Amino acid sequence: MDNRPIGLFDSGVGGLTVVKQVIKVMPKEETVYFGDTARVPYGSKTKETVTKFSSQIIRFLKSKDVKAIIIACNTVSSNSYEDLKKEFPDMPIIEVVTPGVESCIAATKNKKVGVIGTLATVGSGSYEKKLKESCEGIEVYSKACPLFVPLAEEGFTNNDIAKLTARTYLKELTDKGIDSIILGCTHYPLLKTCIGEVVGESVKIVDPAKAAALKMKKYLDEHDMSGGGEEGRHYFYVSDLTPTFDMICSKVLKKSYHAEKIDIEKY
Amino acid sequence: MDNRPIGLFDSGVGGLTVVKQVIKVMPKEETVYFGDTARVPYGSKTKETVTKFSSQIIRFLKSKDVKAIIIACNTVSSNSYEDLKKEFPDMPIIEVVTPGVESCIAATKNKKVGVIGTLATVGSGSYEKKLKESCEGIEVYSKACPLFVPLAEEGFTNNDIAKLTARTYLKELTDKGIDSIILGCTHYPLLKTCIGEVVGESVKIVDPAKAAALKMKKYLDEHDMSGGGEEGRHYFYVSDLTPTFDMICSKVLKKSYHAEKIDIEKY
Repeated sequence: MDNRPIGLFDSGVGGLTVVKQVIKVMPKEETVYFGDTARVPYGSKTKETVTKFSSQIIRFLKSKDVKAIIIACNTVSSNSYEDLKKEFPDMPIIEVVTPGVESCIAATKNKKVGVIGTLATVGSGSYEKKLKESCEGIEVYSKACPLFVPLAEEGFTNNDIAKLTARTYLKELTDKGIDSIILGCTHYPLLKTCIGEVVGESVKIVDPAKAAALKMKKYLDEHDMSGGGEEGRHYFYVSDLTPTFDMICSKVLKKSYHAEKIDIEKY
Repeated sequence: MDNRPIGLFDSGVGGLTVVKQVIKVMPKEETVYFGDTARVPYGSKTKETVTKFSSQIIRFLKSKDVKAIIIACNTVSSNSYEDLKKEFPDMPIIEVVTPGVESCIAATKNKKVGVIGTLATVGSGSYEKKLKESCEGIEVYSKACPLFVPLAEEGFTNNDIAKLTARTYLKELTDKGIDSIILGCTHYPLLKTCIGEVVGESVKIVDPAKAAALKMKKYLDEHDMSGGGEEGRHYFYVSDLTPTFDMICSKVLKKSYHAEKIDIEKY
C-alpha cells in the first residue's frame, strides 16, 4: 500500500475531466492537480516549449511527493511523453493517447474511426500513428476542432451555437461512416452530449480519460502501490487564478474546490 | 521629418487590423509589428504579467529604433498603459482605448452605447470609465464576447456559427437601444460585417484602430516627426511561427508578409 497522492496536470482546466475519472475509478486515492492557467493554451506552442513547461510541472508535482503521474493533456501526451519519460525515469508516468487508442480499437467494429482534438494534437498525428500500428487496415479520419475548447470554457456545452459548431466540424467524419470517435482533448467530454447528438447513437464515443484512469489503477494494483486513504482528498494548483477554474471545476466535479496559485517558473 | 518606423504590438495577430489603418492613414510611414504569438492570449493573465510582457516588447521595438509606439491591444491598453508610460517616459506611446472613446462620443446621438471586448478588457472597466468621464449622462452597456477571437482565428468571420454567436452575445445590447458600439478588441474588425448585420444599419460601429492611427498621425505632424519613405516597408516579428499569422495577415492586409521569429524573453 502507498498512500501518497497521484499527480495530474494539464495546460489548463480540461484535465479536470481526467480527475473526475480517477475519482470514479479509485475513490480512495488522494490526487494533486496542476493546471497551467497562466500559459494556456499549449496547442499553439512548439514541442520544445511544451516539454520545458511540462518538466517544470513534473518537478512541482514531485515536490508534492506524488507516487505516479497522469499527463491529463493530449498536447503534452502527443508531443512530449517520450522526452519526459527520459528526464524522469523513476517516476511512473501515464499519458492519455495510448489508453484512448486501446479503447477505440476495442470499440470499433467496422474499423472506421474518427479522432478529434486541438490543432496541435491532430497535427502531431499521434492518434493516427498509434491506431495504425495497433490495428491493421484501420481507417482513421482526423479533424481539428479549435472552437470546442473556447465553447466549453464559455459554458456553451450544448446550446444552439455548440450544436451548429459540432455539426459543421463533424459532418465530414460521419459522412465517412465511422462507428467510433476519440475525444482527443480533455476539454471535449464537457461537450459529450452535444457531440453524441450530432454523430448519432450508432457511433461510440471514446473518452481516453476513463481508459487512462483504469490504466493507472492497474499499474498501482500490480505494483502494490494503491492507496487506502479517506475519500475526497483532492488538491488543486494553478499558475493563475482565473474564473475558468471555478466554473469548469463545479461543472465537471460537481463540487467547488479551492485552487492555490503557485509560481511554476521557479520549478 | 523623421523616417524611423512606427512600432506596433499586440498579444497576437489581432493588432494587424491596426497596422491596416496606419497604412491607410499614413502610407509613407515604415512600420515594425510584434505579435506575442507564443504567449497569446493576454486576456486571461494578470495585470502584472501583461505589463511585464509589454515592457519586454517595448524594449524589443526600441532596439528596432522606432520613433513612436501604438499599443495595438485592448488588454494592454486597458491594464498597463500608465505603467508603461512611466517606464518609458521618452517614448511617445498611443493606446487604443482613448481614441475609441472619443470616436464613440462623436458618433452617439442618444448617448446609449455598447462596448464589446475580451473578458479582461470588459472586466477592467476601462472603456466604461473613460466614456463616463468624458460624457455626462452616457449609458454604457458592456458585454464580453470570448468566442469572437477564436471564431476570427478559425476564419469563421461571417458564417452561420459567427452569425448565431453574434446574435446571442449582442441581443442584450441591441435590446437597450444603443446607437453605437465600440469594437474593444483588435480582432473584432474581422467580424465587422457579421456584427453589422446583427446590430443593424442604425447602429454605428466604432473601430478604435482607425482613431488610434489618426491620433498617431496628428502627433507626428505636430512634432515634425512624420516620415516620407517608400510605400510598403513593413516588418513583422512574432514569438512563435504559427499558421494563424499568415492566415490573418493575408485576410487583413490583403498581402502576404514574412514574419520573423524572435526570443522575446531575452528583452
